[in-house]
Amino acid sequence: MTATEGPEIAPASAAPFASFQIVQPEVPQTLARHQVKRPPPGIESTDFDLYESKQYVEHATAISSAGRRLHAAVRWLLVVSIGICTGVVAIFIDLGVEKLVGIRGDVNTALRGRSIALQYAGFVGCCLLFVAIPGFMVCFVEPLAAGSGIPEVKCFLNGVHLPRVVDLKTLLVKAPGVLFSVAAGMPCGKEGPMIHSGACIGGVIGRKGAGPLMRSFRTDIETRDLVAAGASSGVAAAFGAPLGGVLFAMEEGASFFTPVVMLRSFVCCTTAALLVRFMLAGIKGNWGQMGQAAPLSFDYFSQSAYRIWEMPVFALMGVVGGLCGAGFNTVNTHLTKWRMRNIGGTGIKRYLEVFVVTFIVTSIMFWMPVCFSGDNDPSKFSMAAKLFREPGTVSIKRLFHVHQNITSATSESSDPQASLDEWELFAFFILYYGLACLTYGLGVPSGLFVPSLLTGAAFGRLIGELVKEPFGCRWDDPGTTDPGVYALMGATAMLSGMARITVSLAVILMEASGSVQWALPIFVTCVCSKWAGDLFTIGLYDIHIELKHVPLLEAAPEREAITVSARDVMAKDLVTVSPLETVRRILQVLEDCSHGAFPVVLSSGVFVGLLKRDTLVQVLRRGKAYGVLCDRAQAGASSAQTIPFKEERTIWNLEAIKAALVEEDYAKVVDLRPYVNQGCYTVPEHACLSRVHMLFRGMGLRHLPVVKEGGIACGVITRKDLILTEHAHLGPRSPAGPLSLIGSETLLRDRSPDV
Amino acid sequence: MTATEGPEIAPASAAPFASFQIVQPEVPQTLARHQVKRPPPGIESTDFDLYESKQYVEHATAISSAGRRLHAAVRWLLVVSIGICTGVVAIFIDLGVEKLVGIRGDVNTALRGRSIALQYAGFVGCCLLFVAIPGFMVCFVEPLAAGSGIPEVKCFLNGVHLPRVVDLKTLLVKAPGVLFSVAAGMPCGKEGPMIHSGACIGGVIGRKGAGPLMRSFRTDIETRDLVAAGASSGVAAAFGAPLGGVLFAMEEGASFFTPVVMLRSFVCCTTAALLVRFMLAGIKGNWGQMGQAAPLSFDYFSQSAYRIWEMPVFALMGVVGGLCGAGFNTVNTHLTKWRMRNIGGTGIKRYLEVFVVTFIVTSIMFWMPVCFSGDNDPSKFSMAAKLFREPGTVSIKRLFHVHQNITSATSESSDPQASLDEWELFAFFILYYGLACLTYGLGVPSGLFVPSLLTGAAFGRLIGELVKEPFGCRWDDPGTTDPGVYALMGATAMLSGMARITVSLAVILMEASGSVQWALPIFVTCVCSKWAGDLFTIGLYDIHIELKHVPLLEAAPEREAITVSARDVMAKDLVTVSPLETVRRILQVLEDCSHGAFPVVLSSGVFVGLLKRDTLVQVLRRGKAYGVLCDRAQAGASSAQTIPFKEERTIWNLEAIKAALVEEDYAKVVDLRPYVNQGCYTVPEHACLSRVHMLFRGMGLRHLPVVKEGGIACGVITRKDLILTEHAHLGPRSPAGPLSLIGSETLLRDRSPDV
Repeated sequence: MTATEGPEIAPASAAPFASFQIVQPEVPQTLARHQVKRPPPGIESTDFDLYESKQYVEHATAISSAGRRLHAAVRWLLVVSIGICTGVVAIFIDLGVEKLVGIRGDVNTALRGRSIALQYAGFVGCCLLFVAIPGFMVCFVEPLAAGSGIPEVKCFLNGVHLPRVVDLKTLLVKAPGVLFSVAAGMPCGKEGPMIHSGACIGGVIGRKGAGPLMRSFRTDIETRDLVAAGASSGVAAAFGAPLGGVLFAMEEGASFFTPVVMLRSFVCCTTAALLVRFMLAGIKGNWGQMGQAAPLSFDYFSQSAYRIWEMPVFALMGVVGGLCGAGFNTVNTHLTKWRMRNIGGTGIKRYLEVFVVTFIVTSIMFWMPVCFSGDNDPSKFSMAAKLFREPGTVSIKRLFHVHQNITSATSESSDPQASLDEWELFAFFILYYGLACLTYGLGVPSGLFVPSLLTGAAFGRLIGELVKEPFGCRWDDPGTTDPGVYALMGATAMLSGMARITVSLAVILMEASGSVQWALPIFVTCVCSKWAGDLFTIGLYDIHIELKHVPLLEAAPEREAITVSARDVMAKDLVTVSPLETVRRILQVLEDCSHGAFPVVLSSGVFVGLLKRDTLVQVLRRGKAYGVLCDRAQAGASSAQTIPFKEERTIWNLEAIKAALVEEDYAKVVDLRPYVNQGCYTVPEHACLSRVHMLFRGMGLRHLPVVKEGGIACGVITRKDLILTEHAHLGPRSPAGPLSLIGSETLLRDRSPDV
Repeated sequence: MTATEGPEIAPASAAPFASFQIVQPEVPQTLARHQVKRPPPGIESTDFDLYESKQYVEHATAISSAGRRLHAAVRWLLVVSIGICTGVVAIFIDLGVEKLVGIRGDVNTALRGRSIALQYAGFVGCCLLFVAIPGFMVCFVEPLAAGSGIPEVKCFLNGVHLPRVVDLKTLLVKAPGVLFSVAAGMPCGKEGPMIHSGACIGGVIGRKGAGPLMRSFRTDIETRDLVAAGASSGVAAAFGAPLGGVLFAMEEGASFFTPVVMLRSFVCCTTAALLVRFMLAGIKGNWGQMGQAAPLSFDYFSQSAYRIWEMPVFALMGVVGGLCGAGFNTVNTHLTKWRMRNIGGTGIKRYLEVFVVTFIVTSIMFWMPVCFSGDNDPSKFSMAAKLFREPGTVSIKRLFHVHQNITSATSESSDPQASLDEWELFAFFILYYGLACLTYGLGVPSGLFVPSLLTGAAFGRLIGELVKEPFGCRWDDPGTTDPGVYALMGATAMLSGMARITVSLAVILMEASGSVQWALPIFVTCVCSKWAGDLFTIGLYDIHIELKHVPLLEAAPEREAITVSARDVMAKDLVTVSPLETVRRILQVLEDCSHGAFPVVLSSGVFVGLLKRDTLVQVLRRGKAYGVLCDRAQAGASSAQTIPFKEERTIWNLEAIKAALVEEDYAKVVDLRPYVNQGCYTVPEHACLSRVHMLFRGMGLRHLPVVKEGGIACGVITRKDLILTEHAHLGPRSPAGPLSLIGSETLLRDRSPDV
């Protein structure tokens, strides 16, 4: 059922359930209120269910204990290698950005003393030159490398295989690309792309391995777990937050996270974080020492205590951050829709847009500090002016730390803490907020973390500076929270308001801040921000997933799903096979449709199992060699040999198969019974959609046969059909509202009988 | 199917699957190698599946949007109240212990100067007096309050309802009990009982509420989520570790943890931690300030960097800790078995044992310091001598911090840091290890955290002191890790080796240490310890669950489960009902068996759904009032009324129902169709046990009907039967071995086709 039958699905045909007619409650006529949107081409769902055929069971039981141990050992090895590779990529990006920013700084320094127009031209030209590289790669080489990549990774882990999303090519475009787009001074971060790079590494290592040891990892479920480990190690490497990485993969990604997968991600994250700590400390000259450095760390926050009255202030900041985030998401949604209509995902128009936006952004970055200080001499810049010119990670630290001197690779910012003007800071906040919104969705690799953290930090610092006056707090009083902590809370609020991640985000920020001390205020801010934001929009990553029409299987069905039955959703035009089938018919079935699996039914119509396309191809390809093709008279004799499970199952070229068959083979009969997934789950046709949804999500299914009374096969629901029909019937996901937070009314409200 | 049919299950009857006979691979004859152990009486499984009857669907769709919002609001309110109550209980226990320890200290101080025999008598007598209280309460009032309670909570969250495990009575015995057992100086902690107390609070608040608003929370699934929130807030309150709390509930507890449940636990944990921080800082005089205090916190660790060569040392300490933990578990298993045979769970023998063990423990606690320093004057005690006399939490801090002066409520330990003798420390380590092993399983509330942390800290400090010599490290060199950090790693290793918790344990310890700095070494130590320990035994909590024969549904099926089919596991002596049934027959069914649900079958034997016992009772009880009982001629007319779902469904007294019926009612017919769970999952009889296991675990089922060809009902698998038969066929859980860690070969090895 690879092709989606979504739009063609007939409305509920009220076929009576024979002698046991269940009267469904009436379905409100407000359903079917939305158009079905077709997903992008090439999307495949993945299948995590147990394929319980005789062939597989024989294979699984034949593996020796030593073989299993070897497999487990190789898996641990893979996990550790993914951690190491992700760490290396993160270090490469981090050092690369530093180097490029240094070069850009040198150019600007060299032009100092020349006319302001020349300085401006040098500043903007340098940025345009930098941004030309990632723009070209995204617009003409690999459009999937645009943006942060987190929506794509989320889809992959959910069970939707967008083509090339975790491939080597994407990695090779993304990692060097983000280096240049960040170095160009654009309001974008390198952290999202680091996470995507980690996922790519997981995918490449899992799927491209050759040899008998590695071949066994080329399954959907192993790939997903390795990609999950890779993505989480990307977080770990980017923020030095191994724990946040694991939680990020759990909260945002994997629909199916057992303690085992958790531990594996954990080891992968620890490896990546250890490597990054070791290398970054070493490169600074302290080889052997394990510092606290990471591509994005917040430096050491003071251990001062906070007051109980500050908690409501933090909560209020969370609410404001959530509202700002919702505004950002709304504007960005419209912008993205406009981009999709008028610019498209690839090509010269998108490439030109990159230059236009970069020109606007860098012009503002250049002229605002000049406006503030009346001169383009960085040594005279105020703090807010510096924020425009410095790399985002340095600016964040500047806002977070009141007492500390910040140094960075750019020569412009090596002087001590400058004076702070509240109005200038406010102007920076507003402008940067707008520029970040303009940039996200541009045709360059660009993360969301740094711009939202920086915007939020500016907002928070502003609050911190304002709060300290009326309450008479002084920074040097040990009992008082300093404005840097307010900046941290502001950053938390803004990021949470945009991305709507709660637990994992809070943990990432806690780990980046280096101290457990601020965990509770961060948590409170985070939850309040999400709460406020959910009143208006869903998270930005989810918005981008929806705009791409990717069929994402949510954790819980919509409330109304209980009124829709499986019958309304299933595809009824079944292509079935019999347990004993001729070669001719099998070939014909494979040629005529692109379904991923076929229900196996008896002549009476009784459903007996599901047969996957790849297994059917294997039977045709290898059947002759194993003597599985036989005359009709002998068919079904139990003496027949079975093709071993480990035979290649991925050859899809039917022509090659046909070439190997002679004319008389076509009439021969194959006993398909050993290859059928005989335990395959089914649902009765009157089962409600909530149940179907939960089964798909909980068991990681791709196909679910529907049976009517007497076990007669009457339809198949595919993952894609399920989601598209849900969208069609129930509308796209809406924000859950304040009382529910991440849709808390969803799964449980449908499962707990009294709600 | 409440009664277990486990032992009576017939071996695989190879009933041919009619026209589509699937030849199962041969099952190795080594199965059925274990005796089935019957679980303790009164155990009920809980059911988290959607009960998709017309009655329920009508009810669910009728609830207004405002009603749903109100429900969600009440749920948030409950979650916050659970957090507050758990925080209050934690503070009560913490302050109570401090007070009682102070009283005991005063007694000992008063006796100073008297003869050593009198001092000894005073010391031991005071302890025996204290321990008499919790001992009495556990042995004669509520035996479930013994031990840490974590195994019981784990079982509850897994879906096994041990009677009274989260009741008010248990809470009222546990919380005051642990106060005295800790104050008596026994090697036990208050943290496990705090977690159990939190779970009890969740259970009480969820289930005992009256009124229409609260009644809707009296469902299995809501109770489980509230108990999970309560248990996690217990961790949060005990360690000041909100994040660790959430992860603990995820890793150890809930088999079913969606992001929604996670966020709810998170809010609960944050509330509890905030309250504890606020109160503990306030009680020390800093009202309004939010400190870092918690019932068990490690104080502030220095921010020094560690060297790369220390990582292997930590890893090695992890391995040693894992081996020590495995030894502890093995000895404790034998001890517990001996206790179960010779002492029992309640009564005078168990009470006497408490006194005997306390006498042994306190005698050693008294005499060892005297041996070390030749005198019973605390001011002359060496550091190791102090460890014997101080409360565990103080001793842990003493071992963790080299420079700091420790003060505690006992007058004996208010003097500055004493000298440290390695041999004395070693003696303390060995003795305390033994005493902790002797104590765990005694008839008093006693946690495992503090004794294992303290043993481990002694071991780690020993290593730290030894390491610093050959490597020439000095404590005051900022580039060198101090021995206190080694103590932290030792504590991690020992606790992880006993409990075999990884991610959540590491997070708890990181949060308790107050700094993210040491997270990576803690993670590495933790994983190595678990790895080493898994070579020999499973975790101590799991051991105690197994010793009690509680049917716990593991996250993943055993490897061999793929060779067993549903047919081999199911109960075949079905008690079924028809869609139209007489009152007489329904009453008879309810009286004759105690099954929790009944398959509904047509006269042809075709399965059409499942009917829960409580619904059947409701039909009998309320049927007359709603006119549901009718004559045979009118039966099945669709005009019949349906009993509303919200009618009481928990009255189990059949006599009362009978009294309300007159003779002619018995012959009347009830149309049961609106009450049948019509979407109920089924599996074909040849489906393998792995699949059945995953369906049970993933969907939270209690009953799973098994059908044969044509949809004919042929058996039912209950949760309990499944687990008992798995144990019978496949043996009890064995440690997973070094390459797999927490059974990494489990679920995935059975689901990934190439292993």
